[in-house]
Formats: sequence, structure tokens, C-alpha cells
Amino acid sequence: MESTTASEMHGALPIETDALIVGAGPVGLFQVFQLGLLEVKVHVIDALPYAGGQCAELYPDKPIYDIPAVPVCTGQELTSKLLEQIAALGATFHYGQQVSALQKQVDGRFLVSTSRGSTFLAKTIFIAAGVGAFLPRTLKLPALEALQGSQLTYRIAQASDYTNKDLVVVGGDDATLEAALFLCSAHPDGNLHKAKSVTLVHRRNVLQAAPATESKVRSLCATQHMRFIVGQITSHSEEHGQFTGVRVEGVDGAEQWVPANALLVMLGLSPKLGPVAQWGLAMDRKQLQVNTETFSTSEPGIFAVGDVNTYPGKKKLIVCGFHECVLAAYGAMPIIFPDKKVQLEYTTSSARVHRLLGV
Amino acid sequence: MESTTASEMHGALPIETDALIVGAGPVGLFQVFQLGLLEVKVHVIDALPYAGGQCAELYPDKPIYDIPAVPVCTGQELTSKLLEQIAALGATFHYGQQVSALQKQVDGRFLVSTSRGSTFLAKTIFIAAGVGAFLPRTLKLPALEALQGSQLTYRIAQASDYTNKDLVVVGGDDATLEAALFLCSAHPDGNLHKAKSVTLVHRRNVLQAAPATESKVRSLCATQHMRFIVGQITSHSEEHGQFTGVRVEGVDGAEQWVPANALLVMLGLSPKLGPVAQWGLAMDRKQLQVNTETFSTSEPGIFAVGDVNTYPGKKKLIVCGFHECVLAAYGAMPIIFPDKKVQLEYTTSSARVHRLLGV
Repeated sequence: MESTTASEMHGALPIETDALIVGAGPVGLFQVFQLGLLEVKVHVIDALPYAGGQCAELYPDKPIYDIPAVPVCTGQELTSKLLEQIAALGATFHYGQQVSALQKQVDGRFLVSTSRGSTFLAKTIFIAAGVGAFLPRTLKLPALEALQGSQLTYRIAQASDYTNKDLVVVGGDDATLEAALFLCSAHPDGNLHKAKSVTLVHRRNVLQAAPATESKVRSLCATQHMRFIVGQITSHSEEHGQFTGVRVEGVDGAEQWVPANALLVMLGLSPKLGPVAQWGLAMDRKQLQVNTETFSTSEPGIFAVGDVNTYPGKKKLIVCGFHECVLAAYGAMPIIFPDKKVQLEYTTSSARVHRLLGV
Repeated sequence: MESTTASEMHGALPIETDALIVGAGPVGLFQVFQLGLLEVKVHVIDALPYAGGQCAELYPDKPIYDIPAVPVCTGQELTSKLLEQIAALGATFHYGQQVSALQKQVDGRFLVSTSRGSTFLAKTIFIAAGVGAFLPRTLKLPALEALQGSQLTYRIAQASDYTNKDLVVVGGDDATLEAALFLCSAHPDGNLHKAKSVTLVHRRNVLQAAPATESKVRSLCATQHMRFIVGQITSHSEEHGQFTGVRVEGVDGAEQWVPANALLVMLGLSPKLGPVAQWGLAMDRKQLQVNTETFSTSEPGIFAVGDVNTYPGKKKLIVCGFHECVLAAYGAMPIIFPDKKVQLEYTTSSARVHRLLGV
């Protein structure tokens, strides 16, 4: 019945699941593994368009030395190994979206919706959100941030969104400059969807990019095929709900008007716990309080593992998150399978586990 | 002063150490790592003659699937990887001995002695003893077990102990048969220290050994270069304190007398918590009770990690032991370095940690 209510509210039937994992970082991936060994099929949501969380976003190429029995690995290698480990367990990943609202249903399940409008009806939720969802840094101009769809974007989802547009690109790192080049008609590459004009706006004349990339951008600016303005966007204008341009203030205080009908803001990603902090769970500063027996939050059925939780003695280390996944998985069994007697079986000797893992 | 007292009691100066780890299984090895990252040099004691504990003893060649980010590894591979990970940290290993007595000193340190007579004066102790020390299964004949030194052995420490002896070998597995062959003068190999005679005693006519090994033993018995008696040892005899032979009862109840002056009992290893259970620490069944903040036992300064401990939610998994090592290491810092402010540093970014690990 709650399910029907949910579908009416959201216009589409929610996905029913035994367990919804929020976060596809290393701890979220190992939560998939531990639940999988107990025959729980899961759905996983992550704000990033790929797995790995902080490891993939902040240090994909940097060595980590304290994963037990892995003397050294990069963040990306750690992620790959964990994805390999869970491959046979059939989790479903929902990338590029954040959880938003949470509603407890009469039957005890949780109705969760995401920033992309997906909805889930879950018996249990495992918050493995780390320091939060990695979301694009914005310009801190609320009126501008209200721009819809392709008028304001934070990454190139589809190059065709920019075809023949007068485009302002904001930012100064490698990713920003590569995007500007990719969309600039005078830059030869395979992209057929070029913008009509490209203006790069960055707060300083120093670009944080590979010399070769910067040099391409500076050459195109020298030949007036691209424009580079040093300054900050202070406001924007609209006509009939359509974006028409931005005002840029230079370091000297001088302002100039840049007509544009597309804005691509690439200021990097910043983690935000976001709506999870509004779910009414007991918190200590920015972390969710859990007990160390099941890693349950203050709401039965909602567990928290990894850097997002806190308890006496807590250390924000991946190896600790791995342990927490184990106890949280067993802690969830009475809710997911109330009539099942769950015994710990060793992966070395259990034929049931071998079948699950396909080994 | 306590140190002096200790040396007087034991006749040799004890080894002073910040931390003594009991058990060189995977969890004990990771305890070395976590203490090492905090610049604590440790001594490690294990009853086995090598590292790895259960993993090395019970399933060296069997696959383990639930070490995070290690989709599959054998017990031996896990051990090797952990040894590699701690290589730069300079732990000292004391193999082939068990901890025995524990005495708390006036200065708060612990005086620990081992079955080989080594003594340690330790600020902290980390019990990572798993299901206990792996000790040889005995014949359950107390009078016989009192035999000294080379008259009764449980493994071949030195082949020369058996030179020209009339030897009885007890057991029926691969290791037993290989030992019998190694010491049998009619079996060609590199061993120069052959026994005068070898009699194999096993309770059944079925041997649990590789067909090729069993076939070699049976051939030597057929040509009367070795003797195989099916039965159990019921008593032994001595003359002037010297072992002179055993009485063997066959499955039919018939008894025979086997003159011998050396006995090698190879019935496998069996874990025993042993003297640690007598240290007066709070226990629940056979496990040591710990808190989940520091994994301290009921005795401040003594920590317990891995399968040997218990707390609400405990799962006997290696990954859980790894986490416990982290919190125990930090939990010990106020005792080891009372004046030092200890901050968690990430191995990815800490130059101090990189120096310690030699990377």
C-alpha cells in the first residue's frame, strides 16, 4: 500500500530493494560485498559518475599504504580490486545522483528519492557517504544557480548542448581548459558539436593546467578564436527566462558585460553531506552517531559506515570502514530476513559462498 | 628497579619493549604495522616456528575470498603480503615459544616469560592469539609426556637427534610419513643423520598421505627396512631415566612391546589458549572481553585483537581483527608515549609515514 502511495507521489513505481547503499566509495563497495555474502541484492547511489568516491576523486593516482595485505595501491587500483571482488554479486549502481528526501513508510520501509527523480523503497539503508557527495563547486550566486538545464552546466554531459552557443566557461584547471578546447571551433579534434564562441573566465591570470594545454588555449586567445577574461562573475541577466549573459569584474574592479547563452562552470568538486544531514538522524558535529554492535544510526534500519559515522575510538581509515560493513550487514539481517537464522560462514570453506562468488 | 628484580628472578636481563605482541597470525602482523606507523618498535612471540598462525597452519594453500580489495589469496599469500607490508618497521620475532607467566611490575610494566625462558618487560601487551597457540597434539600419557629433550620430540628440529637411534614415529599424515622416510636409512635422500631403525605407529591401517609418499613407506615396510604397526601406544618404559620402549595395543586388543630410545610424535597441531587464560583477564567463555573503543582487556595496558577477543557484535573475521589493531594501537599511545600528542596521519600524504615505510 505504501508502495502504491509512493508511486502516486512520484509518478513512477519506486525500485523495491532489501538494501540501499548511499555511496560507492571503497567502504560502500565492501558493504555490497558483505551484504552479497548474506544473499542481499543491493542498489547503490553515488553523486559521482563512477565508483571510488574520495579515492577516485581526490587521489586516483596516489599510493595508499595501509590497506591490510596490500603493501601499496593507488585509489584507482583499490577501487578496481573492490569492483572485481563484488562483480559476481549483481549490485545495481545509480551514478550521478544524490539522495534527497527520506520518508519512513507504515510498513517500516524507507522511501528515498534522488536528485534525478529515481525513487527506492528500501528495507534498510547503508550510508557510506564518506565526507559527503562530491558535488560541483558553484559560483555562490543563487539567482544564477537557478538557471535550468543546458543554460548552466557543471560538466559536459552532451557536447551537442553547446552547438552554436555563445559559451562562457568558468575555471582554470586542466579539466576546464580541456573542455574549452573541446568546444572551441578553431581547435581541431573529433567533436562535431562546436560552440559559436568560447570565453574562458578565471579569477587569476595563472592557470593550473599542463603547459601544453595552457599553451593551446593561449594560442587560440592570441588569434582571437577564444577569449580569456581574468575576473569573477558578479551577476547575470535573463530575458523571457533565457540566460543572456554575465557581468565580470576584473581584479582592478573594472566590469565588463559578456553576452552568452550557455554557461559551463568547472570549479572542481566539493564534498557535501547534503540532505542526509536533514534526515533527523542523531549526529555529532557532521558525523552520524552509531553503535559499535551493528553500526545502526539512531533510526533502526539505517546504518552508517566509514568516514560518515562516529563512535568512541573512531578513526577515519578505510580499514575501519571495512570492519563496520561486516557488523552492519549482520546487524541488518533481522530486518531484511526476520525469519532466517544467519550463521557466519567462512569464504574459504563455505560451498554456498563459493556459488555466490562464482568460484 | 623492577627490571633488576626481574633479571635476578630469571637469571638473564629481560628484553625491554614498548609493546609485546602475542601471536604472529595475520592480525598480529597487522598490529605490528599499526604500531609501527605510530613509531612503536615491537617484539612478537608465536608458538609456531613461522608467521601466519591459523592461515599458515590450517589453510596455507586454500583460497580466502573476503580480505577487502584482495579478491582471492591463500593463507600463505596473505601472510607473505603482510610480512612485506611490515618489512621496513623492524619488528623482532620470537618463534617456537609460548608465553607463560605474567607479572605486573610496580612501575606498571608487565614481565612476561616464555616456554623457552625468554623474558620481556613490556609497557603494553597485544594478545593476537587467535584460537590459541598451535601446539603439538600429545599422546595423553602424562608419564610419557614427562620424557625429556630428544627422547620425546614433536617435530624434527635437528636430524642429528635421531642418529643411530631406534626410533618410533607416531602418526599417519604426510608430515609423519615424510619424517619417517627422512630418518630411515634405507631411504635415499640428503640426510646424513639416519636412525638405526624406524617403526611407524598409527591407529589405523589407512594413512592420510599422498599416494606416492604412502607407497614409498609401504615398499620399505615390505622389504623390512621400516616397520609399520597399527595400534595405539598404551605405556612406555624407562631404565635409569632413559626411555627404553613403548607398549602398543593393536585393534584386536593384542599388545606388543617395541624397544626404542627415541619417540617422535606427529599427531598434528591443536590450538590452546594456554597460560593466557590464567592471566586473570575478564573472559567470556574462551574469549577475552574487550571494549570497542581501545580493545583493551580488563587489565589496562593489555589489549586483545582478532579471534581471541569478544564484544557485542563480534564476528571472527580477519577484516574485523585488522580494524581492532588500529584502535588498539591508538588506545595504547597514552601508555607508551604519555606525553606525546598523537594525530592520525594518512599514509597517502604523511611524509613521516613514508620515511617509516621506506617509500
